[in-house]
Amino acid sequence: MKTTLLILLALTLASARPCAALEGTPAPSNVSGAEYPRLTTDLRVTFQLKASQAQQVLLEGGAGLVKAPLAMTRDETGTWTVTTPPAVPGFHYYWFTVDGLRVNDPASYAWFGWGRETSGLEIPEEGSEFYTRRPNIPSGDVRERWYLSKTTGQWRRAHVYTPPGYESKTRTRYPVLYLLHGAGENERGWVEQGRAGTILDNLIAEGKAKPMILVVDSGYARFASQTVDTNRSAATAAFETVMLEELIPLIDAHYRTRADRRHRAMAGLSMGSGQTLNLALRHLDRFAWIGGMSGPPRAGFDVNTAYDGVFRDPAAFNRKVRLLWFSAGTAEERFHSSTVAIHESLNRAGIKSVFYSSPGTDHEWQTWRRSLHDFAPRLFRD
Amino acid sequence: MKTTLLILLALTLASARPCAALEGTPAPSNVSGAEYPRLTTDLRVTFQLKASQAQQVLLEGGAGLVKAPLAMTRDETGTWTVTTPPAVPGFHYYWFTVDGLRVNDPASYAWFGWGRETSGLEIPEEGSEFYTRRPNIPSGDVRERWYLSKTTGQWRRAHVYTPPGYESKTRTRYPVLYLLHGAGENERGWVEQGRAGTILDNLIAEGKAKPMILVVDSGYARFASQTVDTNRSAATAAFETVMLEELIPLIDAHYRTRADRRHRAMAGLSMGSGQTLNLALRHLDRFAWIGGMSGPPRAGFDVNTAYDGVFRDPAAFNRKVRLLWFSAGTAEERFHSSTVAIHESLNRAGIKSVFYSSPGTDHEWQTWRRSLHDFAPRLFRD
Repeated sequence: MKTTLLILLALTLASARPCAALEGTPAPSNVSGAEYPRLTTDLRVTFQLKASQAQQVLLEGGAGLVKAPLAMTRDETGTWTVTTPPAVPGFHYYWFTVDGLRVNDPASYAWFGWGRETSGLEIPEEGSEFYTRRPNIPSGDVRERWYLSKTTGQWRRAHVYTPPGYESKTRTRYPVLYLLHGAGENERGWVEQGRAGTILDNLIAEGKAKPMILVVDSGYARFASQTVDTNRSAATAAFETVMLEELIPLIDAHYRTRADRRHRAMAGLSMGSGQTLNLALRHLDRFAWIGGMSGPPRAGFDVNTAYDGVFRDPAAFNRKVRLLWFSAGTAEERFHSSTVAIHESLNRAGIKSVFYSSPGTDHEWQTWRRSLHDFAPRLFRD
Repeated sequence: MKTTLLILLALTLASARPCAALEGTPAPSNVSGAEYPRLTTDLRVTFQLKASQAQQVLLEGGAGLVKAPLAMTRDETGTWTVTTPPAVPGFHYYWFTVDGLRVNDPASYAWFGWGRETSGLEIPEEGSEFYTRRPNIPSGDVRERWYLSKTTGQWRRAHVYTPPGYESKTRTRYPVLYLLHGAGENERGWVEQGRAGTILDNLIAEGKAKPMILVVDSGYARFASQTVDTNRSAATAAFETVMLEELIPLIDAHYRTRADRRHRAMAGLSMGSGQTLNLALRHLDRFAWIGGMSGPPRAGFDVNTAYDGVFRDPAAFNRKVRLLWFSAGTAEERFHSSTVAIHESLNRAGIKSVFYSSPGTDHEWQTWRRSLHDFAPRLFRD
């Protein structure tokens, strides 16, 4: 049949160009056919941007990639280039600052972070297969489910992972983990950047985690009646109302869950850690498994007064809560030291809690991927 | 509890600012809290970008939004502004060209189009409710399913819509529509820009379409053994191999499909229309329902030789093919006239075919949303 221009365009987009002379390999987060960003075996990353009229171009991004803005160098064709020092493996947001304007890299996919669509870079970690998709194991489905919230008056989107076997074992019911994102990200973070579905697929295939349903929703909410929201406690209350009165009932109605506290876990990262502890520790009738990843640093944690005094009776708490678990990366020092301090003061008070430390990672997704990989196997064990 | 900086940041991102003096309303495609782009009731759109060091900023995008680049005007604070003439309702890609550099709008979400992440604008159409989510009807799930293709050696992602009732009627099997995107877009196009799930939810709730499974995959493929793909027929063959030997068997194995030609449809838009006709008309043992939306213009269509002569015996064709259907928008003149010409020459030759014409829309998603809304109710009727 006659070839068309559009099909040729598509093939051009979809096909790789020859690249014999280039060092390294295109990053896996590149759009199809893009040669840059490129990774070398020692984890340096080379970026390029064509911006022939620009006076100054900087590379900026997550701390595991660039600690401070890196100046890029212009060649005679107007292409700017920079190579980073060896980077931390995992996922990093990044962007170019072109004469003061923050712009994305057309060569990379975008992910929602920093309150906006932001370029992202995936750097494989040698020996870390736990978040890599495997072809020969059963895998679950990640589903998008929209619902109109009466609390907020707005449509919300939950992502729901149903585990392998969910389709065929139509009488089996599953425990549920509710997992929250951090500030500036959204309800796709755990699915895309966090690879939560792949992590659970792998753990379940290895027999290390129980098959479970995973629910990821947005952590943002404000009451429909408020036009302007500058009140933290109102926003917290709105989120908690959505979670307890809308999301959990929706999931329990629509999916084959085990709808009791012993089969319901909640965890979150950063802002989502704060939300999880605030909500779950005050609603132990609803949750028996609780996790906080890279929680916001807090001073003056008092085991007797925190969370309305839930820790005052350690024996009662330990009987009721099956797991209280924390994590942080060693490179996010304030988060790490604050979390360790809370964990230690809880243990001194007789409250059982677990702490997972992610070596060498900052306030970034590699910390949270590893955290989920540590947390999920502990869930629903009794 | 103690308020943290991160939670405050999140609330700032999530909350609307007061806007008493601004004309119009923020577009529904804006990120949370962004006041621009703004829509007025006569469908003009005002865009803003802060770029204080820029010398020239242009607004560019889809033809239904801006026919040609529109110069933006700088104010004393370095904010550039422009208001378009009244735009065509629906979804439009757009971007800013800042001193020659194409950049996205931080105030809008990004969608994959033009081979890259691109800002998008949704303009509601008065009276068009068919692609609007409704709270009080049952809705299906859109699922992401990854698979490692032996043909291409790469992971591919299919989006699978399962209709309302799929969860509860665990013995019911469903017909399947395979739907392809166009050049420069990807396997999320029909889900995000096209709103295919919502369109089917609404049609099914109204009793206008049969409950069906919808599958959207990538239209790009090249054989694993090819390093560089500049050969159209090889790419076509790779895509067809993936579709026939991998995707369809995967879907039939994993979901409760009716796995025969009478319950299998294929359609696509633009490049995907070409792919659909090339594949389905040569594999009538696999498909009985065939649709082409905004097919690439083609000269010299010969009903006797096209698609290996499949139209040579009209009586046999009409007995075998339950639906051959085409569509185009009146504003995409070359696509429209070419499609009409093919449709008319088929009908002159005694081949039954249907043509849907979308009034006033160009080579854009509003054409394809309306096309799906016309096509889906015709499927699986006998």
